[in-house]
Amino acid sequence: MNLIHIHAQTIEHLYAALNRIGLLDGVLNSGFLRAPYSDAETAAISYIQQTATTAGLNCRSDAVGNLIVETPGSFSTWIETGSHIDTVPGGGNFDGTAGVVAGLAALLAIHKSETVLKHGLRLRIWRGEESATFGVTSIGSKAAFGELDASALDQTYEGKTLADAMLEQQADPEFIRLGKPAMDDHERDGIAAFFELHIEQGKVLECSDTDIGIVTAIRGSRRSWVNLHGTFDHSGATPMGTEFRQDANLAMAYTMVELDQLIGQANNDGADLVQTVGLINPSQQSGFSMPLRDNALTKVSGAACFSFEVRGCDAQSVNSYCDRAFALIHDTANRFGVSVEIDTFSDQAGIPALNSDLQNLMAETSHALNLKHITLPSGAWHDAGTVARQVRGDGTTIPVGMIFIPCRNGISHSPDEQSSPQQIAKGASLLAAMMSELACLS
Amino acid sequence: MNLIHIHAQTIEHLYAALNRIGLLDGVLNSGFLRAPYSDAETAAISYIQQTATTAGLNCRSDAVGNLIVETPGSFSTWIETGSHIDTVPGGGNFDGTAGVVAGLAALLAIHKSETVLKHGLRLRIWRGEESATFGVTSIGSKAAFGELDASALDQTYEGKTLADAMLEQQADPEFIRLGKPAMDDHERDGIAAFFELHIEQGKVLECSDTDIGIVTAIRGSRRSWVNLHGTFDHSGATPMGTEFRQDANLAMAYTMVELDQLIGQANNDGADLVQTVGLINPSQQSGFSMPLRDNALTKVSGAACFSFEVRGCDAQSVNSYCDRAFALIHDTANRFGVSVEIDTFSDQAGIPALNSDLQNLMAETSHALNLKHITLPSGAWHDAGTVARQVRGDGTTIPVGMIFIPCRNGISHSPDEQSSPQQIAKGASLLAAMMSELACLS
Repeated sequence: MNLIHIHAQTIEHLYAALNRIGLLDGVLNSGFLRAPYSDAETAAISYIQQTATTAGLNCRSDAVGNLIVETPGSFSTWIETGSHIDTVPGGGNFDGTAGVVAGLAALLAIHKSETVLKHGLRLRIWRGEESATFGVTSIGSKAAFGELDASALDQTYEGKTLADAMLEQQADPEFIRLGKPAMDDHERDGIAAFFELHIEQGKVLECSDTDIGIVTAIRGSRRSWVNLHGTFDHSGATPMGTEFRQDANLAMAYTMVELDQLIGQANNDGADLVQTVGLINPSQQSGFSMPLRDNALTKVSGAACFSFEVRGCDAQSVNSYCDRAFALIHDTANRFGVSVEIDTFSDQAGIPALNSDLQNLMAETSHALNLKHITLPSGAWHDAGTVARQVRGDGTTIPVGMIFIPCRNGISHSPDEQSSPQQIAKGASLLAAMMSELACLS
Repeated sequence: MNLIHIHAQTIEHLYAALNRIGLLDGVLNSGFLRAPYSDAETAAISYIQQTATTAGLNCRSDAVGNLIVETPGSFSTWIETGSHIDTVPGGGNFDGTAGVVAGLAALLAIHKSETVLKHGLRLRIWRGEESATFGVTSIGSKAAFGELDASALDQTYEGKTLADAMLEQQADPEFIRLGKPAMDDHERDGIAAFFELHIEQGKVLECSDTDIGIVTAIRGSRRSWVNLHGTFDHSGATPMGTEFRQDANLAMAYTMVELDQLIGQANNDGADLVQTVGLINPSQQSGFSMPLRDNALTKVSGAACFSFEVRGCDAQSVNSYCDRAFALIHDTANRFGVSVEIDTFSDQAGIPALNSDLQNLMAETSHALNLKHITLPSGAWHDAGTVARQVRGDGTTIPVGMIFIPCRNGISHSPDEQSSPQQIAKGASLLAAMMSELACLS
């Protein structure tokens, strides 16, 4: 086994420049903004490119602007890693970026060790994984495999379409418009394995004082807006009871409680789902035009709206649960004389199982590196999920492994997002050992 | 009994000019805005003044700008009516204004009939009853009786303080600043009876096909903001259950459902209360600074906020219910690991019983006028409530009677607010008969 130790100082060193790129208000406690296909994202990518080039690695960009860093030499198959370097507005510098830095550190360390490789090593920086700005997730990885719907190009952020943002960063939206993969079939078929290191974005590793999470599966998500239409009435002059009040807010509250009980029952019966109502009566939401602004403190509410997200690794389980949840929503609203519209605007199937051989090898290697590890599903979607569903020319899927590292208090998408250089270095050491091991196999 | 029939045409005629004063966008379906102490409110008052003066009635304003219309002659006691002529932004032309028009029609009809009066007749137009702009209700009537807290003068609407708005309309804020009644004790003690005609702002009369509601009591209100502080977490990476999620939105939903059950129980046990959560997670609310904007579709919510209003005629019943409700809110939030702050920002005691002699006389008179009538409490607060709690020099309270007329679909505070000239005329006929009858009693 090729055990390569990545040191915390190496991580700190690589982070020094990134800590300034896209920093909001120039101070760390405002967080970062490196939007998909922004100058800030490109600047971060360029820094990785320069660092890799200086160290003797090869770099190129694909048609949609993903950066590809490779060990020199001619190989027919590749051991890859990758993540993203964009952030949500006001996000931290670890979601995605930790995986890019760890991947670069792994390639640099293996390259420097002059290990004789049977398979090449690659790092991919996928463009625009975060959906917070253009409303589309995993733009770069989906576009690489021809999976991104052309309608994404018309999505706007700060008045600019994704298509225009791409053009400004020398990326070509035509591939997306035509549904054509930016990666050719030969390159895709040559991916022998793909790894992504990522912060957990949850508290499971931290709470169990664990260095490494070996990801077993990736939750997909189904997201909807639920709009309830009741009747506006005077809050003093309207008696209580559903014969007088068609109270949209109250119908929403009962619906949420019953949905909470429904998912508790579903999980007790063996499902593994999470359900979240993150936004209630938001001032702005895409979808319906709702008279939410006509609600008032002294009115029975005539309109209510909530976001409804269900996540699970198994798409069939998510869909069958949503069928029951939607029926419940209609039934409950009906009891209150309130009408309902449900708009499912995003539906991404999960990855029910990542490659088990890689999971086993990661467990053995963690053990050899003296890293405490557990297995867990990924609650969030990742570019690795896009890679894991790609079918190669021989009919097999690309073997994908995901490494989670802890982040403080499980916080992510926040200026408070934090993983230590030591925590990242431990994950990077596992990543380097895995890539090195596989790259030397015949 | 002095039966005076007010005709629908008279109402229509008096409304013709008012239908143009403060009309938003110049079209009826945008509704009206005659804010307290605005040029539009003053214009509407001036129109009433001109019409009354032309017909031979006397007019004067008190120090805080309320208009007083009187039958000529010297009287030591007066039979009064009054309402307001201001509107909420985008409101209708009937809430308040119907009572002013009916009152003027009653005075004009009795004056024209040359009935010999033993007591004078007065119409008062109270300034600024609506709280939607300056956040203070019944400004004019409270200031008349020295009840308005001086802090109201600093409340602002569109960047202008109430004090400045008053000065612009030749009203004197000093009375309010000093807590000094604008009406002297002698005038107060001379009020033998006070009536207010108002649209119901509910559906009870319309649903029972009734002309007249004889108001038995007026609901007061206690209004609070309830703020819940949970923990923001990733919606995918955070397992279900309160050991992982301190979900403010979910805690709010459970709280609302349990409050709904609590009030159902209280009313079953004999209370007569209504409870409304009109606003949930509003983008702007006075009170706490809440990180509501940090909520997101893909986060477990860390913050939630709802308005909580309880109304009842009996203040003790409202307060004892609120004690139980607030304890429930704390207990429920506690189960979710969510902390709570409750800010009660408005507390107005109701009028548990309006004068029963006047109620009986209104019932008899309605019968004589062939008007179908029922008794009911007023769900909304009215200037009549301010009058009803005034104690005269002899220790008695001013006898107050309230007449409700139907409004279409119970809608109020909306451009769709509507009462027909026929409906207003029926109420005005009862009002005129009552005033005439009482003014002729020895």
